[in-house]
Parts: sequence; C-alpha cells; structure tokens
Amino acid sequence: RINSDRLWDSLMEMAKIGPGIAGGNNRQTLTDEDGEGRHLFKRWCDEAGLEMGIDEMGTMFARREGTDPEALPVYVGSHLDTQPTGGKFDGVLGVLGGLEVIRSLNDLGIKTKHPIVVTNWTNEEGTRFAPAMLASGVFAGVLEQDFAYARKDAHGKSFGDELERIGWKGTEKVGARKMKAFFELHIEQGPILEDEEIEIGVVTHGQGLKWLQVTLTGMEAHTGSTPMYKRRNAGLGMARVTELVHEIAMDYQPDAVGAVGHMEVYPNSRNIIAGRTVFTIDIRSPEKEVLDAMDGRIREGVATICEALDISFEIEQVGHFDPVAFDPDCVKAVRDAADRLGYSHRDIVSGAGHDACWINRVAPTAMVFCPCVDGLSHNEDEEIYPEWAAAGCDVLFHAVVETAEI
Amino acid sequence: RINSDRLWDSLMEMAKIGPGIAGGNNRQTLTDEDGEGRHLFKRWCDEAGLEMGIDEMGTMFARREGTDPEALPVYVGSHLDTQPTGGKFDGVLGVLGGLEVIRSLNDLGIKTKHPIVVTNWTNEEGTRFAPAMLASGVFAGVLEQDFAYARKDAHGKSFGDELERIGWKGTEKVGARKMKAFFELHIEQGPILEDEEIEIGVVTHGQGLKWLQVTLTGMEAHTGSTPMYKRRNAGLGMARVTELVHEIAMDYQPDAVGAVGHMEVYPNSRNIIAGRTVFTIDIRSPEKEVLDAMDGRIREGVATICEALDISFEIEQVGHFDPVAFDPDCVKAVRDAADRLGYSHRDIVSGAGHDACWINRVAPTAMVFCPCVDGLSHNEDEEIYPEWAAAGCDVLFHAVVETAEI
Ligand SMILES: NC(=O)NCCC(=O)O
Ligand SMILES: NC(=O)NCCC(=O)O
Repeated sequence: RINSDRLWDSLMEMAKIGPGIAGGNNRQTLTDEDGEGRHLFKRWCDEAGLEMGIDEMGTMFARREGTDPEALPVYVGSHLDTQPTGGKFDGVLGVLGGLEVIRSLNDLGIKTKHPIVVTNWTNEEGTRFAPAMLASGVFAGVLEQDFAYARKDAHGKSFGDELERIGWKGTEKVGARKMKAFFELHIEQGPILEDEEIEIGVVTHGQGLKWLQVTLTGMEAHTGSTPMYKRRNAGLGMARVTELVHEIAMDYQPDAVGAVGHMEVYPNSRNIIAGRTVFTIDIRSPEKEVLDAMDGRIREGVATICEALDISFEIEQVGHFDPVAFDPDCVKAVRDAADRLGYSHRDIVSGAGHDACWINRVAPTAMVFCPCVDGLSHNEDEEIYPEWAAAGCDVLFHAVVETAEI
Repeated sequence: RINSDRLWDSLMEMAKIGPGIAGGNNRQTLTDEDGEGRHLFKRWCDEAGLEMGIDEMGTMFARREGTDPEALPVYVGSHLDTQPTGGKFDGVLGVLGGLEVIRSLNDLGIKTKHPIVVTNWTNEEGTRFAPAMLASGVFAGVLEQDFAYARKDAHGKSFGDELERIGWKGTEKVGARKMKAFFELHIEQGPILEDEEIEIGVVTHGQGLKWLQVTLTGMEAHTGSTPMYKRRNAGLGMARVTELVHEIAMDYQPDAVGAVGHMEVYPNSRNIIAGRTVFTIDIRSPEKEVLDAMDGRIREGVATICEALDISFEIEQVGHFDPVAFDPDCVKAVRDAADRLGYSHRDIVSGAGHDACWINRVAPTAMVFCPCVDGLSHNEDEEIYPEWAAAGCDVLFHAVVETAEI
C-alpha cells in the first residue's frame, strides 16, 4: 500500500499555491501560479530521483528508469491546473498520486521492468484557453499544435506566448513518446460512488462532449425609449437558448447533460438592450447518437429563436470529443487491483473529460475514480477524505506495477 | 434663430473627446475623458463671458447675468457624460444647445431680465454608477449626497473618490440654487417623431422607471459530471427571469417596456454551472399603476422560478422614479415657441429618464425633443441631422428667452 499521509501532505502543500477565495484553488493554466506549482512538482520529482522531460506544449514527464530501459514505459498522471474557482483535488490527485506510486516503489526498493513516467498535462481545464485537454489532445494527434498555440484567453493573450512567458516551453516534440499504457487517477466529480458508498470507480467509458460557442448579434438601443416591437435583443436571445439547452438535456437525461456556464453581454449596461452576446453551450452524453441529436436540435432551435427576435447568429464548435471506451486490459488491471486490495468497486462512466480520453487513442488507457463529497467539483468547496485518496492511489499503484512488471 | 453651424461645430468638437470604437463616444462619468469634456465646456463658457459655479456633486452652472440680478435665473442644460458605447448627441445636445442660446443672445446683444444659467449635470447615464440622474436627484432632494458619494463602479471605485480625482468637486451646496424654470433639449431616443415626420416633440410627461438588481445564488458544479437533478443553476435562473421580464412588458405594451441589459455570471467558466448571477431588470411605464403591477409580478415570478431551481435570490432596487408630468406653463412655452417658429410639433411622453424629471420637483420644468435617426440611442450609431438640432435649439432659444423676459 502507498503512504497515505505523505500523499495527503503533498496534496495540501500543492494547494497552498494559487489559493482561491473560499478555501479552494485558482491556479489557472499558464499563470504565474501554474509556473510555481510546476516548480514544486519538479523539486519533488528531483528528490525522488526522476528524470524530467518537457515537451513543446509544456507537458512534464518525470521518468523512473526500468530494469529494461528499452521496454515501453507505463505512464501515469493527470493535470495540476485548476478552474478559476477550483478544488484542491481535481487533477492534482492524479499527478501527486502518480508521484506517490514512485515514492512507494522507492521506499520498497522495487524495480519494475518497464520505466514509469509521471505526467502533468498542460491546460486540462480549458477555462482560460478553450478547448479543455489541450496538450493531451495535441499529444494524441487530435489537435494541431499551431491551433493550440493560437488559443487566446479573455484578455487576448495566446497560449503560445503565455507558455514561453512562464518559462515552461520544452523542446521535446509533442507525441513522440510511445507508451505501454496510461493510467489516470481522478476524483469522480459526480455523486454516484458516494451515494452508493463504493470506494473505487472502475472507469470503463467517458462521455462525449461538444462545446458550441454562440455569438448573437442584435441592435444596441435604449431600454426606455425603444418600443418593444423595435427591439433586437441579443440578451433575450441568449436567455432563450440557455433555456432550450436545458430543456433538450432534460429530454435525454439520464443519458445527457447540458448547460451554459459562460456568458458575455455587450455593452452590459443597465439601460442598453444588449447588441451582442457571446456564450458557450456545453452538452454531453455517453451515446454518440444522443450527442449528435442534441447538437442538431440546438442548431435548429437557435435559428428559430433568432428569427423570432430578428437577430443573427454564429455557432463555432470550440471543443469536441466523442464518447470513449477505455482499453479492456487496462480496465481489467484496475478492477483486479481493487479486488485484490479488498476495496468495494463498480464500473462507471466518466461524466467529465480527462486527458486519459485523448491518450486512449494512442495507448491502452484506463482510469481510477475515487468519490468526492456531495459529488461536488469545479467548486472551491470540492472535498475528499484522506482514506478515499489512499484507496484510489493504492489501486493505481497495483494497476501500474502489474502493468510495468516486476 | 440660433447659429446652426456653430452649434453643429461645437457638437463635433466635443465628440472628439472620449471617442468610442465605432464612431460614437465613450465619455463615462468621472473618467479622465469626462474631465476633459468639462474643461472644453468651461473654456467655451469663459469665452462667452459666463461665470462658472460648481457644486459638491460636480455639476457645472455657467451664468449669464440678467438686467435684474436679483431675479430668479432660468436654467437650461443636460449632461455631457455618455454610455460606454454612446452617441454624440444624447445629453450633449442639451448642454451645447443651452450654450448656443447664450452665444446667440450675445451675438444679438439681447439682455434678459432674468439671468440664464447653462448646466451640465453629473452622471446622468447611470451606467458606471447606478442610479442614473444622480446629481440632479441629489439637487432635487430625492437622493442623499452621502448615498451618491458611496456609489461604486464595477471596479469598486466610489463616486466620491472619482469626483475628487478628476478635480471637479466644487464647494457649492447641492440644491441651494433656486430656479425660475428649467428647460432641457434632448434627442427623442425613440422612433415616434421621425416616423411621423415631425420636427419638435413637446414633452408633456416622462415614464416612470424601476431598476431591480437581482442576485441569484445556486451552486457551482461541474457541467459534465453533475446529474441534471442535482443542479442548482443560477445561470438558468437568470435566463428565466430575463424571459419573464420580457413577457410581462409585452403584456402591458405599448404602456410599458422591460429588459435585462446588465448580466454578470460567476465564475463564468465553460464547464462550471453558474453558482451566482447578478443582473439588473429595467422596467418602465408612463402609468404608475402599471409600473407597480409589473414590479409585483416580477417579484412573484422570481420567487417561483428560484423555488423550482432550488436557488436563492435577493432583489435590490437600485433606481426608481415615478412617472412625471411637466409644468403646464413651461410646456406651453415650448409649444408656443414651436408654433411661432413654424415647426411641426406634437405632444410626446419621454421614454427615457432625464435630469429634467428630477428638477421638475423643485422648479417649473419642460423639455424639447428633436428626432433621431431610426429612434436609435445608447448606440454609437446614434445620429441626428444638423437641421433637426437647429430646430430643437431654436425652440429652446425662444422658450428660454420668453421665460427670462427681455
Ligand atoms: N475533469 C475535468 O474537470 N476536466 C475538464 C474538462 C471537462 O469539462 O470535462
Ligand atoms: N436619457 C437617457 O438616456 N438617460 C439615461 C437614463 C435612462 O436610462 O433613462
């Protein structure tokens, strides 16, 4: 078993970097705080005797040599970046859990045949720069590196410039590495495991996602002196589309979710009818057909809403992945590990996107979930118990070591 | 008749200060640009031989002496501040139209018995600091000066501090001045005069207004992994209230309008269900009963919407004025002036709020409207023709001079 206290201490230590305003974290990708978190992680990797590689997307790879250096390494990891009002565990648990696997192997003096590489993927969250899982997407060949570099945040700063600025742009070609397997430990971010009092989620599938960024253009005008019939209200259009997305998701639930979490209004003045709104629709389903059907209904609905309000629209897809089925052998390694350790477990579908979803396209991949309190994530109040983290990390340890062969 | 070219040149000169991004203006209240606009206006007043007084709210009063200095002055004016994406005429026409009245009297060597004072009221627009018509509200005794000083912009800067910073805080007690009458020339900001091809609006009434700032509190959570039944979506709540306001306004139109032009979403991330939204409802009607009925229906509707979504709400009234009936004698002076000059005219209700609406409580007041292209205002494309401005200013000239007595 891994060292549960050490894992927890490291989680709490990392959480001091980029503190939020309500007990959580704001360590958004490629900010100074992200840079600081990377330095801390590197120091820990150095102390554990690992060799650090950094690729052109800033992804960090800390390698523990195997007895057969030619054997393909087993990768393990997740991400250290957070939401603007994020928790202490989303992503961080998977990176520091990977580090704890190495530290435990060092403690026990165990050598594996295959090298093991702990990974911190750049920009998993996608809030500052859409889409999410950007670096793993480029690694898996699904996204172009130039496209990634050109992503802009809300202040117009580009991913490429910010990566250089914080000093974490490496020289290694992205995607050059070959993997025997990839394992990612993560909090569930949903309520199922806690509700069913189960310790481990064996992640067999991941939901598919679409992010549709919508721009509505109406006409700025005075809220007081413009008659109702003359209005071309882009704010009202956004409201109607928000309701539409909710209704469509309700029609397909529990096989779908949908919401609008990002909304901007121009010029955003109390006495001006909005002339322009920009917002992002987030729809997800484990079934590709459902995801496509929702997408179709939304596009139709937006057109109808805009026609009625005499406003125009543009829809840009700023994020997309299809539902994922993880590798049966890797999934079995996770399930067997939980069995062997005597942890209660169930198969589960991931509601969130993860770097593992992209890496699954280029290497056999699986995920381990542990519960989180109230299923709450993307909230500074995100919480897990040390026992839950330890159980997840134990399962990760066993699955990784079995795959890396002693 | 006034000098139409000189009026237009002055309007175009003022429009160079705080240019917008699309041909209009961004000269928001108490910004550096507002300070610059005030300096230009003061220089023009100096050149016209006027004496400048400034009160503790920063309102500017430029006085032309009467033959009887003891006689109560006739006031004329409006405001030089603009919306963030405002036009070149909203407010400015009334201040520079007042200046043009003085310049024309100087040209003609006409002396009036009563002094004439051209006024620039501080913070009419209310976008940077709610409510609108702040300085005239304090002048009329409807708002407290301490309340006004404590108003904060979106960056937390206070009205009082910003007034000191730009150096336009005067020493004169607010509201100390007594007026024989107040006249305000303004663009209609609506489509009626242009549609009916009428040159002058004789403003008999002003609509009442309420600004209700609503804060909805739900629960930040992951858009992907939070089941639909577990969501407490403050963004969806805002969407439903926006639709509700529209529906209620449609029920009462043409005797009412309503919209939500200001919306903020927290934390505004693509993959976080909004935990909090803040937005302002703007409802108006010329009938007090209608305004009150709308207010009641909105409060009931917000409660129902929030209950269904399991979110909580707070409603703060951040602006309010009852419908206004202007002074019959002043209104008659405007109507008579239009008749005398041979301009087509009609009685009209103001859809927007104006400084005149507050001043009407402490002095006999009336307004002159001229049309604006497409009824468009609070938009950088706001447009009027020089002939329209000249006609409005001619009527102002005659109404003011008749009231100030030669
Ligand atoms: N795990 C996680 O929160 N990933 C961010 C991408 C997503 O929205 O699913
Ligand atoms: N005239 C004008 O636009 N005033 C601003 C206050 C309002 O919204 O009516």
